[in-house]
Amino acid sequence: MHFTSETSSDGVSERRFVHDGVPGVLWHPAGSALGARPLVLLAHGGGQHKLGPRDRARRCAARYGWAAVAIDAPGHGERERTAQDERFATEVGELLAAGRPISAWVARHTAALAERAVPEWRAVLDALEALDGEGLGPVGYWGLSLGTVIGIPLAAVEPRIRAAVFGLAGHASLVESAGRLSVPVRFVLQWDDELQPREAALALYGALGSREKTLHANPGGHLAVPEFEVESAERFLGCHLPCGAR
Amino acid sequence: MHFTSETSSDGVSERRFVHDGVPGVLWHPAGSALGARPLVLLAHGGGQHKLGPRDRARRCAARYGWAAVAIDAPGHGERERTAQDERFATEVGELLAAGRPISAWVARHTAALAERAVPEWRAVLDALEALDGEGLGPVGYWGLSLGTVIGIPLAAVEPRIRAAVFGLAGHASLVESAGRLSVPVRFVLQWDDELQPREAALALYGALGSREKTLHANPGGHLAVPEFEVESAERFLGCHLPCGAR
Repeated sequence: MHFTSETSSDGVSERRFVHDGVPGVLWHPAGSALGARPLVLLAHGGGQHKLGPRDRARRCAARYGWAAVAIDAPGHGERERTAQDERFATEVGELLAAGRPISAWVARHTAALAERAVPEWRAVLDALEALDGEGLGPVGYWGLSLGTVIGIPLAAVEPRIRAAVFGLAGHASLVESAGRLSVPVRFVLQWDDELQPREAALALYGALGSREKTLHANPGGHLAVPEFEVESAERFLGCHLPCGAR
Repeated sequence: MHFTSETSSDGVSERRFVHDGVPGVLWHPAGSALGARPLVLLAHGGGQHKLGPRDRARRCAARYGWAAVAIDAPGHGERERTAQDERFATEVGELLAAGRPISAWVARHTAALAERAVPEWRAVLDALEALDGEGLGPVGYWGLSLGTVIGIPLAAVEPRIRAAVFGLAGHASLVESAGRLSVPVRFVLQWDDELQPREAALALYGALGSREKTLHANPGGHLAVPEFEVESAERFLGCHLPCGAR
C-alpha cells in the first residue's frame, strides 16, 4: 500500500493511497495510528468515486473514532475506463433518455464490475491489516446501489466484515450471495426509486440469510435517502462494531 | 371521565377510569398533573386489552416524562362482547385451526370494531383535554395490528394526532383513510407475518399520504417485533412530540 498524500483537518486525517493500481483514501482520527479501531468500508454508488463518501467518512472518524476507507470502483474515479465501461455509460444514458427500463442492463454490467471489485476490496483489507502491526478492528461495510452490488458478494466471502449497510439495489443475480450472509444487515430502500424496481429490492432483502436484518424504506427517489437514515445507519454500525483500541 | 383508582410506583402514576362506559388507564409521571406534556395513545392488538401496553406506557412516562392512555377496544378486556364478537372469536379460531387464510375475515370484523372505537378515542381525548384546565400537549398514536386498523381512520379525522406508529396490518379497506394522513408515520412490518399478508401491509404503507413515513421491516412472525424497534418507535415519537409543560 503506497501512501501518496496526507492532510488533516478538524481532527481527521485523510490519507490517499494506491494499492495494486487501485486508488483509495483512508480516514481516521488525526494524531493516531489506524490501530484496532472499527473500520468502515465505504463503497460509492455508480458514476461516483472514492471521495463521494467523504462526508460520511469524516463524520465516522470525528464522531465515533472509527477509521474509514474508500476506493474507486473499476471504471470509476481515477481509474481507466475499459471499452466496455465506455459503452455502458453511453448506452445507459441512451436508455434513460428513451425512458426505457435499465435495471436488467445495469445489473449485468455492475455484476461484472463486482467480480473485479471484490478481490480489490479484500486486497485493501489485507494491506490495512498489515499496516501498523496492530491488525484490524471490527470491520463494517456501507454501500448502496453499486456499493450493494459489490458489497453482497464481498460480504459473502469476507469473514472480516461483521455488519453491513446495503440498499437501493436488487437483482436475481445477487440472491445466491445474499443467502450466504449471516452478519447483521441494515437494508435501505427508496419507495419511489426510479432506477431500481421496488419488487427486486424487496426480494433481495428477503433473500438475505442474516438472522438480524432490518429494512428501512422511505418515500422518494434513488438519490433522496433522508439524512436521518444516514445517521441511523451510523448508529446501526456503532451497535455492531464494538470498539477495540479506543 | 370517572377515575376509579390510582396507584403509583417507580415514579409513575397509573389511574384507572371509565368514560362513557369505556374503561381505560392513564399513566403520567407521579406527583404532577397531566398538564400539557406529550400524550401517547396506546392501542392494544386484537384479543388483548388496555393493560397490554402497560410496560410501554410506564417507560414513556418514566423515561420521557410523557403521559400515556389506553382503553379497551370494543369487545375486548372488561367490555361486553356482542354476539358478533363471540362469533368472530369462535370462527377465527376455527379458520386458524383449519390453516385457512383469515386476513379478509379479520379485516371485515376489525373494520367494524374501528367504526365504534374511533369516536371512543376522540371522546377520551376531549375528556383529557378538559381534565385539569391546561389543555392537551402534542398527541401521538401508537398501535399495531388491530391498533392500526383503528388508528388509521382515527388519525384521518383527528387533527390532535401529530405523529403515529402503525404496522402489522394492511387491507384495501384502510387505503382511503391512509391516503388522508399527513402526519409523520413509522410503519412496522414483520417479514414472516403469519397473520398479515406482506403485500397488503406494503400496499398500506405505500398508500399513506404522509410526506414523512418510514417503513421498518424485520424477519419473524406477527408477535416477534424486536425490542429495538419498540425503542426506535419511542425515539421517533420523541422527535415529533415537542415537549410542552416539561
